[in-house]
Amino acid sequence: MPNFSISKNDLIDAHQRIEPYIHRTPILTCAAIDELANCSIFFKCENFQKIGAFKMRGATNALLQLNQSQLQNGVTTHSSGNHAQAVAKAAQMLGVKAFIVMPKTAPKVKIAAVEAYGGKITFCEPTLAAREDEVAKLIEKTGAEFIPPYDDAKVIAGQASAAKELIEEHKDLDAIICPVGGGGLLAGTILSAHYFSPMTKVYAGEPEGADDAYQSFLQKKLIPQKEPKSIADGLLTSLGKQNFEIILEGANAIFTVNDSELLAAMRLIWERMKIIIEPSCAVPFAAVLKNKALFENKKIGIILSGGNVDLEHYFKQLNSISF
Amino acid sequence: MPNFSISKNDLIDAHQRIEPYIHRTPILTCAAIDELANCSIFFKCENFQKIGAFKMRGATNALLQLNQSQLQNGVTTHSSGNHAQAVAKAAQMLGVKAFIVMPKTAPKVKIAAVEAYGGKITFCEPTLAAREDEVAKLIEKTGAEFIPPYDDAKVIAGQASAAKELIEEHKDLDAIICPVGGGGLLAGTILSAHYFSPMTKVYAGEPEGADDAYQSFLQKKLIPQKEPKSIADGLLTSLGKQNFEIILEGANAIFTVNDSELLAAMRLIWERMKIIIEPSCAVPFAAVLKNKALFENKKIGIILSGGNVDLEHYFKQLNSISF
Repeated sequence: MPNFSISKNDLIDAHQRIEPYIHRTPILTCAAIDELANCSIFFKCENFQKIGAFKMRGATNALLQLNQSQLQNGVTTHSSGNHAQAVAKAAQMLGVKAFIVMPKTAPKVKIAAVEAYGGKITFCEPTLAAREDEVAKLIEKTGAEFIPPYDDAKVIAGQASAAKELIEEHKDLDAIICPVGGGGLLAGTILSAHYFSPMTKVYAGEPEGADDAYQSFLQKKLIPQKEPKSIADGLLTSLGKQNFEIILEGANAIFTVNDSELLAAMRLIWERMKIIIEPSCAVPFAAVLKNKALFENKKIGIILSGGNVDLEHYFKQLNSISF
Repeated sequence: MPNFSISKNDLIDAHQRIEPYIHRTPILTCAAIDELANCSIFFKCENFQKIGAFKMRGATNALLQLNQSQLQNGVTTHSSGNHAQAVAKAAQMLGVKAFIVMPKTAPKVKIAAVEAYGGKITFCEPTLAAREDEVAKLIEKTGAEFIPPYDDAKVIAGQASAAKELIEEHKDLDAIICPVGGGGLLAGTILSAHYFSPMTKVYAGEPEGADDAYQSFLQKKLIPQKEPKSIADGLLTSLGKQNFEIILEGANAIFTVNDSELLAAMRLIWERMKIIIEPSCAVPFAAVLKNKALFENKKIGIILSGGNVDLEHYFKQLNSISF
């Protein structure tokens, strides 16, 4: 039996703490998808979560555990994606300042979202060193509290609430599959399954071009991601240390899929379910389609992690159609 | 008080009849959208309906009232869009043949869907005359029963069930807004509001480039649509006769929006709600945004009529990104 440092009560407390601030997202099914995949899939729609991604859960749980004196100088983080939006939004809800360091190459749509949530953005070069350096300067200048994106017990406990809700509504899942990037969602999912549905296996999907979690799991040592290449922009980071320990203990397998496979899976979900998910989010479903025999006739939970895609080009093209 | 030939019991019977064959679609809300629109909007998600559109309701209600001898030779219709899919799918569920006449210019994705539901397609020139001529030939040859797309009491009673479900879950709506093309959904919505929530006003949205309903309503006479021009491909047909009579009695107003306005509304729904709707479907929300003062602080139901868009180009573009 694994022995995790994050307890069952930590998860229960985290969920209770964040419940007033997050959406309890719907769980959707689709007969056409089930037929294609040859199993029953329950999609936990975190693309409908506030800020459009599960990251809202972990960031909110971390912020709510800061005391007034910690909060008074605001919070800070560096992120080019959903975590930036989550920290900005959680800070806005609590009425505190958020200083967000974003690489200057971040998508316009995500910069606009952080601004809309009242985040004060500092731009930096698109390297981890530049990002960390900028955050260190901001902390020195403002006294803001750092909110880590995934390698953190509070963040992991927050992300765990997505799988916890899925398990509460579907007690007899054979497996839950989620994507893995930094490992916050996967670690949280493993903990929720362990404490609330121990018969449920936990798998992860990862892009082939950013397969550090797959390699680390295989070799049983943490191997940082070098030069990731994938359209799944949310899964390019290296696995966190605490996350890796939990994953090594509790994951049943990590599957990799290439970009064509994940785009085909994403398209199926857009077309058949009429919902918008981001590329990173399609990875688990692509993994199910790639490993049909393993999941045949099983009852599977998939966490759809987010729905933040840049639709600029698509709508420009539609707008330019002349009649 | 209007006196409609389709009765309250007709609507109740239709809903009961089709319930085992259709989805009771979810009703979604979105805080960000409400803030933008300055009212509370309840979106009835018929984009999640079987075949991805409300048309499933009317077609199913019509088919279920055919007797065995009528069904034995199958059913037929002409359509380039969602009605074709609805008739094919309803026929498939009842185990009868569907002969679908489609203009040879119909989108590939819709042709593929009709085929997937087992419909036997005959292609014709893209004119109403050619379509009607081909259906007449098919009926003579096969003895199939014709299922009209909108100008039909059974079809109208079926479409009415979408607004009926919306009213059942939200009894105090100030208004319901839906798109108008042939007028099946609008006539049905008017009837449901009249019988089940008489204080609820009913409005429609129509593309400026296909505004025959707007003109007909204004001039109180049925004016056929000539040379429609709009990206809202589901709303290009002329209003049906029975539909017009009901609309003239029961609609509170018809609003027109141009293609830029409807695309902006469609984009907001995709981006903020993370759901896929088709251009036709964005027209009512565009009308609300264009007439904010009228709907300020009101409780509004919007029927999201469908989600069948061609994503081919978008995914081709994503697939061609090289890393």
